[in-house]
Amino acid sequence: MLITKKIQDIAELVGGSIVGNYAGELTGVSSLKEAMSTDVAFLGNEKYVNQVMPSKAGVVLVPPAYKEQPPEGRAWIVCENPSAEFSKVIAVFTPEAVKYAAGIHERACVAEGAVVAADASIGACAVVSKGARIGARTVICPGVFIGENVTIGEDCLVYPNVTIRERCVLGNRVTLHAGVVIGADGFGYDSGPQGHVKVPQVGIVQIDDDVEVGANSTIDRARFGRTWIRQGTKIDNLVQVGHNVQVGRACLLVAQCGVSGSTVLGDGVILAGQAGVVGHLSLGDGTIVMAQAGVTKDTAPKAILFGSPAQDRKEYARQMVHISKIEGLIAEVKALKAEIAELKK
Amino acid sequence: MLITKKIQDIAELVGGSIVGNYAGELTGVSSLKEAMSTDVAFLGNEKYVNQVMPSKAGVVLVPPAYKEQPPEGRAWIVCENPSAEFSKVIAVFTPEAVKYAAGIHERACVAEGAVVAADASIGACAVVSKGARIGARTVICPGVFIGENVTIGEDCLVYPNVTIRERCVLGNRVTLHAGVVIGADGFGYDSGPQGHVKVPQVGIVQIDDDVEVGANSTIDRARFGRTWIRQGTKIDNLVQVGHNVQVGRACLLVAQCGVSGSTVLGDGVILAGQAGVVGHLSLGDGTIVMAQAGVTKDTAPKAILFGSPAQDRKEYARQMVHISKIEGLIAEVKALKAEIAELKK
Amino acid sequence: MLITKKIQDIAELVGGSIVGNYAGELTGVSSLKEAMSTDVAFLGNEKYVNQVMPSKAGVVLVPPAYKEQPPEGRAWIVCENPSAEFSKVIAVFTPEAVKYAAGIHERACVAEGAVVAADASIGACAVVSKGARIGARTVICPGVFIGENVTIGEDCLVYPNVTIRERCVLGNRVTLHAGVVIGADGFGYDSGPQGHVKVPQVGIVQIDDDVEVGANSTIDRARFGRTWIRQGTKIDNLVQVGHNVQVGRACLLVAQCGVSGSTVLGDGVILAGQAGVVGHLSLGDGTIVMAQAGVTKDTAPKAILFGSPAQDRKEYARQMVHISKIEGLIAEVKALKAEIAELKK
Repeated sequence: MLITKKIQDIAELVGGSIVGNYAGELTGVSSLKEAMSTDVAFLGNEKYVNQVMPSKAGVVLVPPAYKEQPPEGRAWIVCENPSAEFSKVIAVFTPEAVKYAAGIHERACVAEGAVVAADASIGACAVVSKGARIGARTVICPGVFIGENVTIGEDCLVYPNVTIRERCVLGNRVTLHAGVVIGADGFGYDSGPQGHVKVPQVGIVQIDDDVEVGANSTIDRARFGRTWIRQGTKIDNLVQVGHNVQVGRACLLVAQCGVSGSTVLGDGVILAGQAGVVGHLSLGDGTIVMAQAGVTKDTAPKAILFGSPAQDRKEYARQMVHISKIEGLIAEVKALKAEIAELKK
Repeated sequence: MLITKKIQDIAELVGGSIVGNYAGELTGVSSLKEAMSTDVAFLGNEKYVNQVMPSKAGVVLVPPAYKEQPPEGRAWIVCENPSAEFSKVIAVFTPEAVKYAAGIHERACVAEGAVVAADASIGACAVVSKGARIGARTVICPGVFIGENVTIGEDCLVYPNVTIRERCVLGNRVTLHAGVVIGADGFGYDSGPQGHVKVPQVGIVQIDDDVEVGANSTIDRARFGRTWIRQGTKIDNLVQVGHNVQVGRACLLVAQCGVSGSTVLGDGVILAGQAGVVGHLSLGDGTIVMAQAGVTKDTAPKAILFGSPAQDRKEYARQMVHISKIEGLIAEVKALKAEIAELKK
Repeated sequence: MLITKKIQDIAELVGGSIVGNYAGELTGVSSLKEAMSTDVAFLGNEKYVNQVMPSKAGVVLVPPAYKEQPPEGRAWIVCENPSAEFSKVIAVFTPEAVKYAAGIHERACVAEGAVVAADASIGACAVVSKGARIGARTVICPGVFIGENVTIGEDCLVYPNVTIRERCVLGNRVTLHAGVVIGADGFGYDSGPQGHVKVPQVGIVQIDDDVEVGANSTIDRARFGRTWIRQGTKIDNLVQVGHNVQVGRACLLVAQCGVSGSTVLGDGVILAGQAGVVGHLSLGDGTIVMAQAGVTKDTAPKAILFGSPAQDRKEYARQMVHISKIEGLIAEVKALKAEIAELKK
């Protein structure tokens, strides 16, 4: 069900003429910089004129003023207003979105005492427990479990096989991708001679408006109080957020990163892929943690951290330079030794 | 569904009097050391008297003998016996636990030939395959899949959307959080000119009593024999345990760590977050692997390991010291060069 | 449901005689090199004669010509043709495979307009959306969600609680383990003063023949076009594959590794456990990325990479050697200082 077009289709669509040879299928649109060989891109602004030749885009919409010839295997479509025509091209490659029927599927299980908005959609084999509230236009896909007294706002989209445990609270326009688990117990034990004795985890997870959580990510409920994801934060796949963590507004948590219990992230924090943050820390607004870095200390606003254990960008860069100088040092020390031996004679 | 109280509610509950100003909501209880600003804590023992002022707890129960004044924005509740009164405060913030109805939900699918204890609970859209056995008081939540001939003991709690594949065995009081997968095939192939030819994975996973497994973690079945998680071990979210691994008693496997095939962990081993252990190793009892470390060799009991590849604590610390000395060395060598040049003259 | 045998059972099965003492249970078979203490192994070729004594196998089938005595706690079974007899032993430890009934379970939900082959198997509480096509002999286990217009080929096996979103395409003989998510939205936002504005992700995931994907792994749909996993590639558990990634033929992606958006892996690439690759890279055929390494640059074919950030094997080894020499350098510089001081006098 991949949408494919030929260059002729696109030329006709935009009323342009083809220069060069592009023989393959086209499968999408992109910016010049990000394009793959099966993409259509466009030159809409003279500022980007130097991106056309190095771009990988198989086909580029260009204005008549653009005079470079396409390299072998790529082609241009010359048209009057590439910017404006490009939106037609986007539309061609965008399939119709899935529509979710309002109402409760006959194979869904909605408990008595749950409150579901009339225009919400509850899919087959979804389970909504007593006391739960589902807001207007919210979609609960098949196989989702909604625990007791969970509250979900309006215009949310909860993809299949998600689990939201008891009493958790979601705002409006929250998207949870498939397999997400919200509100599992935090990892807390009193360890002693009796082994690891479970510390009850009786708090909740609160997710504010406009948050998106990627597939199979997990956000644990608080011991008491709440684990809190604030407005506009976006979380990628397979991310772990521990109990009592607070994630600020408009943060980005990239795939497979993890945040340990009770850590507080400021607004606009970015954790790159596979980064980790230990527990009970405070990361200042705008902190950026690079991929695979491991943060072990509080950070100032706008800190940029590299490495494991993570260091400030400058510190880290200096250390890298120092390590690169060892080889030279070895040679220098050898030379000095020889000179001293010579002097001794 | 966050439980919130005002300071007046708490003061009334414990029969105490308020000193200072705390205007916000209270959402839970905590120790002085771990408290957040919306927590109630208590001073129950003179030993901790120096923790009251630095604590972040918004409200602290203190005995009449405690005379320090609270800082701006925090408050004390003075009462006769803070320790004893504190258990009332805990109770106030602890919501009623979810109750699972005994019996098989009418929308569950239990195969003929499965044996389910009369007081076990099988949720809606759960599937229990033939030959499976579910013990007394065990709860199987909605959307769970139990494969053929799986055996689950008593008092287990299997959260929604868990998958347990054929023939795996769980002891008593085992908790599996949502999305856990027990008994998927181990990752084993014979690689050659025909590509990667699958090696059948026909063993099982055996999980002993009192084990807890966090959300979306995966424990693979053995090639032959069993992958074995022993009594009292606690596993966090998004953890990977490979085929034929043996995890000892009372281990802690923190979020996003992974153990490769056929490795044996002794008792009381701790793998911190995002740590990894390669296959076919043996880690001694009480080994501690720090966050993001990567273990590539067997370890002696009580080893403590840092870094990737992981080194013993002392070795690692020495290496860190050495690296920190490079800058000084560069300066020293430069000075020596100058001195030698001087001497030569 | 662990299959266990005694040494006498095995000796009788293969018509051999026991030498030495093995008192415990046997739970499987293995090669000499990989064996655990409860395994049966065999000496089928003189080439491996030196592996018998160091093997951990509790019991080894040996030919009459083999004259070494087993150490305490292990035993041999002497038989005429160990190689041939061993296949009987394998059969004894291999339980009957699960059989999936052809047809649509009465508790499955198959939409009108979905096309399911007559001999395909659709399990209880599985949901197949309109326009989906399920090929011959393909098994869709309970709790699986198949989105609109998804195409699945023949002889596929989709384990419980998998989610495959709209329009994705699977070839033949594809295996998806439990909890896998195919086709969740890629992680793409335009970030600016309005926050992180979602970039629509309207492409698909295409998975070619003979691919296997491990439990709870996630493969995101493309922004446009396709995220593409090519023929014969094997993916382990908890792996993340970002949008528009292309994974070549016969690659191995080991547990918890991740590949960021738009990266292209050649054929036969191996990513070891917890490795990461940043976006928009190209890794040459046969590249091997070691465990926990973090790749930040394109690689040539057959590159071998270590460390984070990842370095070529030789570069990395040199750096390790340099770091190990710092201690010696410190001592040498100290000695030189003393010598110079001496000379000055």
